[in-house]
Amino acid sequence: MRSESAATNLRCVDCQQSHALEYRLACQACGGLLEIEYDLQRLKDEPLVQPHRTGVWRYAAWMPVQDGTNFVTLGEQLSPLFQISRLGAELGLRRLWIKFEGSNPTGTVKDRSSQTAVACARQFGFDAVGVVSTGNAASSIATYAARAGLRGLVCCYTRSTAAKMAHLAGVASDVIWYEGVYDDMIRHFDAAVDRGWLFDGGATRNPFKQDGKKSIALETYEQLGRAPDLMVYPVGMGETLLAGQRAWVALAATGRIKKPPRPVSAQSTEANTIAEAWRTGAELRAKTIGYTVAEGTAVGDMGAKGRLTLRRIREQNGLAGDVSDEETLDMQRRLAQTEGLWVGPTGAVPLAVTARLAREGKLDPNAEIVCISSETGLKGDWPQLQVRGEEPSLELIRQSLGRPPTE
Amino acid sequence: MRSESAATNLRCVDCQQSHALEYRLACQACGGLLEIEYDLQRLKDEPLVQPHRTGVWRYAAWMPVQDGTNFVTLGEQLSPLFQISRLGAELGLRRLWIKFEGSNPTGTVKDRSSQTAVACARQFGFDAVGVVSTGNAASSIATYAARAGLRGLVCCYTRSTAAKMAHLAGVASDVIWYEGVYDDMIRHFDAAVDRGWLFDGGATRNPFKQDGKKSIALETYEQLGRAPDLMVYPVGMGETLLAGQRAWVALAATGRIKKPPRPVSAQSTEANTIAEAWRTGAELRAKTIGYTVAEGTAVGDMGAKGRLTLRRIREQNGLAGDVSDEETLDMQRRLAQTEGLWVGPTGAVPLAVTARLAREGKLDPNAEIVCISSETGLKGDWPQLQVRGEEPSLELIRQSLGRPPTE
Repeated sequence: MRSESAATNLRCVDCQQSHALEYRLACQACGGLLEIEYDLQRLKDEPLVQPHRTGVWRYAAWMPVQDGTNFVTLGEQLSPLFQISRLGAELGLRRLWIKFEGSNPTGTVKDRSSQTAVACARQFGFDAVGVVSTGNAASSIATYAARAGLRGLVCCYTRSTAAKMAHLAGVASDVIWYEGVYDDMIRHFDAAVDRGWLFDGGATRNPFKQDGKKSIALETYEQLGRAPDLMVYPVGMGETLLAGQRAWVALAATGRIKKPPRPVSAQSTEANTIAEAWRTGAELRAKTIGYTVAEGTAVGDMGAKGRLTLRRIREQNGLAGDVSDEETLDMQRRLAQTEGLWVGPTGAVPLAVTARLAREGKLDPNAEIVCISSETGLKGDWPQLQVRGEEPSLELIRQSLGRPPTE
Repeated sequence: MRSESAATNLRCVDCQQSHALEYRLACQACGGLLEIEYDLQRLKDEPLVQPHRTGVWRYAAWMPVQDGTNFVTLGEQLSPLFQISRLGAELGLRRLWIKFEGSNPTGTVKDRSSQTAVACARQFGFDAVGVVSTGNAASSIATYAARAGLRGLVCCYTRSTAAKMAHLAGVASDVIWYEGVYDDMIRHFDAAVDRGWLFDGGATRNPFKQDGKKSIALETYEQLGRAPDLMVYPVGMGETLLAGQRAWVALAATGRIKKPPRPVSAQSTEANTIAEAWRTGAELRAKTIGYTVAEGTAVGDMGAKGRLTLRRIREQNGLAGDVSDEETLDMQRRLAQTEGLWVGPTGAVPLAVTARLAREGKLDPNAEIVCISSETGLKGDWPQLQVRGEEPSLELIRQSLGRPPTE
């Protein structure tokens, strides 16, 4: 049977060594990151879209799963791409779009890579897939594992928020609640992965897991019919930017677009390692970070993925920026009030960075810009609003709407 | 220009008087509820689906909006229809489906009627639309109003939950926070509606608002290619059941299906007025209700809509059932663990009622059953889980997965 996938081999991003297409987390020669290569001729010859399929499997040839019986789906649809004209006008940008990832089954962009993670876990014969996470990635992996009938082992610290912990406890077959921080747990998790106990659903190493996120670029191309001038990604480990740009590069290589959009890295100022290096021209430097509302960008040490992200931004004439929590929350509110889009804080960071770059004169007002809003606002934990309730009356409504006084 | 809509007139459900197709909230002759009638020949002759459109506008002829420039959309897609075979087998039901409404823009089925509410507000020249609500309906109406550039005036009591209040405060242009209960506010709101200050976005009276929910049946038909034997609806004011069944009846009248599915009303035991009347054969009796986790079913006095709901269930050979909060929460967990679907409590009620009716021998094991899961679990307010965190170790992971001891 012909493979559903056009994947041909793995290649090291550092030493360029090619490896056979098997489950492998690092280059055998130099320990570097691996990426999957695809048969570009096949990607060019075949139609881009398989319209009868859902989720990342619409672009099955572009994904690393060979046998369609391993696909897993929760009825995903293309996430909506909105032109936000009113807010764009306020920012002085004429062609501004939001790709809203909150419509995914667990409300975040992570559902794209969870589809390839769980399907590849099946492909390589695993009965379990797992991740160490503060909540969003964990509930996404656990949800798709449940749908596929696999075990989902997720490690979450006990300081996560009530909504995330409830969601996780609801969907995951195996939860390890631990005391400490990510670094305390990840080395044990990696050791378990290295023993073959479970498939690696994390963002640091596994080339098979991440390719689902290529679909964010493929969908944007399908919806827009062209490449935008700029794609603005929220950057934590850099996975969405790296996968999205890999897809754009392949769309160019297969003749569908002239050139990839310029990638823009959007971070919280609290964790602005890419932005700092890009502004100074220096190498990437890890930093110790504190709290930011944009939890999805809260990575102080991106490691090898960070170096690759910075390299791709420089190669592809990209940009990088960062914003304060105040700018992020202000943009979250403006987006809700002017366009009705309710995004989580991390999902507001790309637009807030775009606003800042526009103010600084770094953007062409006529450029076509797509901002990735990576998460729904529904999933947030919100403090109880302190409001004073009024006595119900018709007069309250009249005043609020500014209607003429009644007799 | 030809109207997008096949709507022809309003008709009173009680005295059958026909009225012209204008904004009207009650029968001029008897004060009864109004429903919109459509040109069945046109609905029969035209293709059901306009595939280039999104949301309820895929079925524009079946909706009450004449001019496409008044349509409003937030990039809705068909909500997924899942066959849940594993859980179905546990319940002894071979053909069980979930229509998952959590994928709608604000995470609930209410987004369907908000589309027609806001588009009709435009159609009839209003600059504001509003509702009295404990949260979900309010944020949905406010979101679509923002998208359309209209004002959204929502009245919400101050005892609502933190997540709902934050969402509402984020998206709504006008919020009135009030002390008291629904009944205290609704009479003032209705007075404002009667003065023409704003378009009625509530569930009690407005025939134009509710027709968006017909799309839940039209989508199910489009996805399944046939009518199921039973449709199980969560019932609060009865709007979803009434609108869904109106669409099924019209699908039968236009020759697309042989007969409508039997409607099943699913309520919380706390607010089981329809179930009580159905079991005893008596008239509907309002009751004073207390707290239920299934907030969407917490209506003790359904008024005229309740009488109509009961009448339709009897006319269409339907069923009715109710479940305790314990049964609801248990089903919420089972659905997450076996199928990866994370629904809110109200969204679990139809499946819990189905399970109970199956246990009581009231369902054919071979019947095809579609349960409406009306809301996402992401939007809930969750108590902080009390878990004891473990010290991170490899041994924890080994034990959780049941792998052999390491040396």
